[in-house]
Amino acid sequence: MSNSSSDRIVSAVRKWIATAPPGARLPSTRSLVSQFEASPVTVQKALRTLIGEGAIEARPGVGTFVRTVRPARPGDYSWQTAALGPLQHGMALPSSALRAASNDVVALHSGYPDKDLVPDRLVRAAFTRAGRSDAALSRPPAAGMPALQSWFAAELAAVTPPGLTAPNSGDVVIIPGSQNGLSTLFRTLVGAGKPLLIESPTYWGAIVAAAQVGVQLVPVPSGPSGPHPEDLERAFEQTGARAFYAQPNFANPNGAQWSPGLGEAVLDIVRRHGAFLIEDDWAHDFGITASSLPLAAHDDSGHVVYIRSLTKSVSPAVRVAGLIARGPALDRIRADSQAQAMYVSGVLQAVALDVVTDPGWKTHLRNLRQQLTGRRDLLAESLREHVPEAHLEALPRGGLNLWLQLPAETNLSALARECEARGVVVAAGDDWFPAEPAGRFLRLNYSGPAPGRFPDAARIIGEALREALG
Amino acid sequence: MSNSSSDRIVSAVRKWIATAPPGARLPSTRSLVSQFEASPVTVQKALRTLIGEGAIEARPGVGTFVRTVRPARPGDYSWQTAALGPLQHGMALPSSALRAASNDVVALHSGYPDKDLVPDRLVRAAFTRAGRSDAALSRPPAAGMPALQSWFAAELAAVTPPGLTAPNSGDVVIIPGSQNGLSTLFRTLVGAGKPLLIESPTYWGAIVAAAQVGVQLVPVPSGPSGPHPEDLERAFEQTGARAFYAQPNFANPNGAQWSPGLGEAVLDIVRRHGAFLIEDDWAHDFGITASSLPLAAHDDSGHVVYIRSLTKSVSPAVRVAGLIARGPALDRIRADSQAQAMYVSGVLQAVALDVVTDPGWKTHLRNLRQQLTGRRDLLAESLREHVPEAHLEALPRGGLNLWLQLPAETNLSALARECEARGVVVAAGDDWFPAEPAGRFLRLNYSGPAPGRFPDAARIIGEALREALG
Repeated sequence: MSNSSSDRIVSAVRKWIATAPPGARLPSTRSLVSQFEASPVTVQKALRTLIGEGAIEARPGVGTFVRTVRPARPGDYSWQTAALGPLQHGMALPSSALRAASNDVVALHSGYPDKDLVPDRLVRAAFTRAGRSDAALSRPPAAGMPALQSWFAAELAAVTPPGLTAPNSGDVVIIPGSQNGLSTLFRTLVGAGKPLLIESPTYWGAIVAAAQVGVQLVPVPSGPSGPHPEDLERAFEQTGARAFYAQPNFANPNGAQWSPGLGEAVLDIVRRHGAFLIEDDWAHDFGITASSLPLAAHDDSGHVVYIRSLTKSVSPAVRVAGLIARGPALDRIRADSQAQAMYVSGVLQAVALDVVTDPGWKTHLRNLRQQLTGRRDLLAESLREHVPEAHLEALPRGGLNLWLQLPAETNLSALARECEARGVVVAAGDDWFPAEPAGRFLRLNYSGPAPGRFPDAARIIGEALREALG
Repeated sequence: MSNSSSDRIVSAVRKWIATAPPGARLPSTRSLVSQFEASPVTVQKALRTLIGEGAIEARPGVGTFVRTVRPARPGDYSWQTAALGPLQHGMALPSSALRAASNDVVALHSGYPDKDLVPDRLVRAAFTRAGRSDAALSRPPAAGMPALQSWFAAELAAVTPPGLTAPNSGDVVIIPGSQNGLSTLFRTLVGAGKPLLIESPTYWGAIVAAAQVGVQLVPVPSGPSGPHPEDLERAFEQTGARAFYAQPNFANPNGAQWSPGLGEAVLDIVRRHGAFLIEDDWAHDFGITASSLPLAAHDDSGHVVYIRSLTKSVSPAVRVAGLIARGPALDRIRADSQAQAMYVSGVLQAVALDVVTDPGWKTHLRNLRQQLTGRRDLLAESLREHVPEAHLEALPRGGLNLWLQLPAETNLSALARECEARGVVVAAGDDWFPAEPAGRFLRLNYSGPAPGRFPDAARIIGEALREALG
């Protein structure tokens, strides 16, 4: 993959194939070696790549040939529509947050931090070590590597107030990313057809997971300081719901962090209703002027089920999260998680543990905080200067996003299209609402590539907005 | 993880902690360095491990202390039982196949091949390369790495008969292991409450995934040569089912491989009923006296949805599978898979591709075939000699298991317990039946560690069986 010499040959041969007839014979390895001034190993590697892609085929002892293209006739799959039946509601994914964007645009839409913000040296070293270890060839216990379970438990135990029983490693289930965890939690703690209270706006991945499981979403409005306890109380009373999904720290998209008082009030409501709080601590490592204070540390009665991913802060390649629960709920969660994913790759678990227990991790988090501060402030200032029509209710104390409110008459999809035509990719806020949007918003992620172009991007958003408003 | 010097310190300090009072101060790093004759780096590493486990805590500038144990009071989680409601049917996982066994027993129960049977050198080298590449820090496209998609498509294209349109890379979705894929397929192609035809016996993971999604399983009896077409026809007619899950090659547990004629007959039935065949080609790389011949290669009308995992043959740490479908079903599968798991770690995808396109992979598969032949034959001969009361209907032409039928009066769980007490772990066959078991069976996996002890293991099974039968 990283061998540029082999890549060069692949790309040259690919061009040649495009003009060659099917079945044409490739030049011999020897002549490719001399043509590209490369070693036989490099040429063989390039040919293997092309064989892997199905572009050429090797006939041992005969030679290598351009793959014979089979007569392609348009497939008739219309029978499938009858077999599949109606589309399930809400199963279409919003395209913006997972989209790949080309390098020549400013990408403010993605949910994943840029390469500059992950601890590259630690991650690469950890993969090398894990590749040499037992983890590369064996299967870890289904609930996770004991040492990683312990690490997640210890992190929460370190902030558990005196007098409360801290979780232990047996309360932790290692899962392959928080998305798998949300499916499991919605299925085990709520169930198809039953109500789930959810902040509005909230993380679109949770909305999609809920649709997949078929739970009925009950929106609880949530502003820059979180939801109002009265709204939550009323929603529990009216629906008989037994669970509330929330992001009490640096909520995605609006950055809200609940005050300690609000946290206690919510815990109190949840307990009185015999319900679960599903706490998604997605931005635990992304504090800026505050740190994430998990509510789960303030509950030892099994009411809070806590989910905390390392994917965004360690590396997008390390899809590992910890899920902490207590009581019978834990048994059901463990069984459901295994039925869905069996277990998490031991290498990814070993890498995650290696990175977060390295002394360099703390240093990385300190640097990250500084970088996020600079990026957040630069984007916010640029927006204030270039998009005066828009309103930034609060500067988030953590997380990766600004939540920019636009005039009510804005045509969001037209605006997003217009921005993209000018080289700035933005995410329309509607995807983050489980029901009616509370207004017109853009979610602008300040952790993407090329922060130096934030002022330009803001200027373009301003111009596009004024054009869209007429 | 692999540093034995640091491990030694961890284990010594752990013993010391066990006798020390909570809050006790650890000897200084300097004194540990001299006590263990180790470098400061090694001592620091050991302490980090213990901090990660929550056994000790560092107070910067003060010292390192045995972690204060908080007053543990028994948690009262009884409220959860009301909140969670009744247990969903079938959600308890059979414990046998995923269980870890200690080294001093002969483990015939596991579904995963021993370390000796995976291409260790290729896997380790691939992890090292992937750790250095872009894949370690970035997010691949949601549907998968294009080159890996191409590889899966090309593998099937290579056996597609002339005249049929082979799949292309766009028809492939990369998923994090086949278990995630089965959930997605049962949800998108069948749906909760709807019937799914399934071989009996069949893979327990499929039975568990079906229970999780809530599909209604309709068993179709399947013997050593596969199901009877008449049974399948009747099941489609009586239930109106739109899908049939099967393993046409080296079925788990009974090793059946369908004849080409049976394959065509099943395809014909599936097409006439406007239905899907979900083909789980789990043992593609485990042919012994035959090769796997995917039925998916004989269908270009979108009726066969194909799933093919690399986890068991590349490494348990490389949880990567390819799913191939065409038509509107593909769109729904892609959307559901993303909603469940987002995407698969780019490192795991890069490692999988690296291994299967390495010239050493073909050599490995040839060696593997020889090893599996030897293991299968040794276990089968040993059983014939030492367990004459049991019946081995057919020697499988591929796969990892023998399916041993026992006398009808055998008490299976008593037998399994008795074997384990004597140092042989076996899996009771009942877990592989979606409804009533068709008899008393043991599934005996011949890909586990210590094949040299198969004769001993067979002798023990024979003794335990005779004891159980009285």
